[in-house]
Amino acid sequence: MNYTKEYDILRINKDYKNEEKDIVVVESPFTIFIDGNEIITLLCTPKSLEELSIGFIISEGLIDSIDDIEKLSIDEKSLIAYVDLKRKNNFAEKFQGKRTITSGCGKGTVFYNVLDSFKSKKIENPLEIDIETMKQNMRDFNKISELFLETGGVHSCGLYDGKRMLIFEEDIGRHNALDKIIGKALKENIALEDKMIFTSGRISSEILIKTAKREISTKVSRSAPTSLAIDMAKELGINLIGFVRGEKLNIYTNIKTLVEE
Amino acid sequence: MNYTKEYDILRINKDYKNEEKDIVVVESPFTIFIDGNEIITLLCTPKSLEELSIGFIISEGLIDSIDDIEKLSIDEKSLIAYVDLKRKNNFAEKFQGKRTITSGCGKGTVFYNVLDSFKSKKIENPLEIDIETMKQNMRDFNKISELFLETGGVHSCGLYDGKRMLIFEEDIGRHNALDKIIGKALKENIALEDKMIFTSGRISSEILIKTAKREISTKVSRSAPTSLAIDMAKELGINLIGFVRGEKLNIYTNIKTLVEE
Repeated sequence: MNYTKEYDILRINKDYKNEEKDIVVVESPFTIFIDGNEIITLLCTPKSLEELSIGFIISEGLIDSIDDIEKLSIDEKSLIAYVDLKRKNNFAEKFQGKRTITSGCGKGTVFYNVLDSFKSKKIENPLEIDIETMKQNMRDFNKISELFLETGGVHSCGLYDGKRMLIFEEDIGRHNALDKIIGKALKENIALEDKMIFTSGRISSEILIKTAKREISTKVSRSAPTSLAIDMAKELGINLIGFVRGEKLNIYTNIKTLVEE
Repeated sequence: MNYTKEYDILRINKDYKNEEKDIVVVESPFTIFIDGNEIITLLCTPKSLEELSIGFIISEGLIDSIDDIEKLSIDEKSLIAYVDLKRKNNFAEKFQGKRTITSGCGKGTVFYNVLDSFKSKKIENPLEIDIETMKQNMRDFNKISELFLETGGVHSCGLYDGKRMLIFEEDIGRHNALDKIIGKALKENIALEDKMIFTSGRISSEILIKTAKREISTKVSRSAPTSLAIDMAKELGINLIGFVRGEKLNIYTNIKTLVEE
């Protein structure tokens, strides 16, 4: 099992521009069955899966002690945990749908199930990006959050039209900050399809899906993307740019269309 | 509505040690009702709540467009959104229990409901801490994660006995990394009550609750805590230490017992 994956990216640093390999952390769906019932699919780094299974089910209160587990086996290939408990429970219902991303998981079809699940449309004409403007926008974006400057405890999210910022939101949660942007745009009747999202946070598959559902063509982060987010962005034609810091940035998708030679 | 809250903390920087005010980001439970049914309680920064409500319900696929909303009102005091839809739906069941932290929310009792919900015991004798050892442990902890050094995309979590590290885990998710630690400790029969958790990530109420459920007396982070995490840690007698960076750190709870004069 690999915890990292190599991608061909375009690395930019001032005038330096080169197609290189980049190492990205693997994000995998991992499904836990208890007594034959599918309980949840976690999105995780596929490492220490037995430990994750035990920790998750005790944190969620499904067991009181490790002695409540009769048997635990991990299918490392399909990324499934099968847990049998000594006393049978009825919590399958409680967990129905909770943080679950697909019900047909672990058979190599997860990825497409996830995509299918939100009737995703491939973006045919992603926004054209001016690299210098994007770098400057990120420098400004980093300075906007007063809450971050005061507390160090929030994530920021911004909606840009390619030139300037239209909406700024912040929250203790990356997901909430993005939902606030989406909510504000809908409320003020601002089209999202031709806009870019800037975020202070990492880009995981869940964040990418939220963006994709609204057909936002471009996602820009000062942090890292996960493997699953890059795979989905490629599939959907979304511009994905990460580690935008000072003069540096990494372009993960649409390399050829984004940067004309 | 305030988005920050002041706390009395002990600020340490090398030999400097002073009780000061610190500004912390507010984390609040915010409950969304749709057509009279309680759908979810989000933990968030209580800002742009109308936008968050709209964004959340469209991201989750509960509406297709903002026109599906008949009426939306926010009770800013109780932190509740009341949403009425034009076409009635049956998704209350789908969301039953999902990310919901309490069902009696929004009446000022949330905080205690959350605490009650996991039969929390107050920690009577939290671990004694040696400040110099903790600073050195954090410096070492920051260097351990190869996955972070390679990818920049994971959170780290460590279990310490006050002197040395016993378990190290990492994951794209802060929650998963902590669950892996808990799972590993249970598997190897390592008691948790007399140990400390180190984390690279911010400490929100959800992370604090996971720690508290296992009666872990001490939580140490290189990042920020939220207001709700501090309030809970105080209530439960948990040592909460944040922003441990180089020679600096902030002690948020148990100040008198942690640092003898």
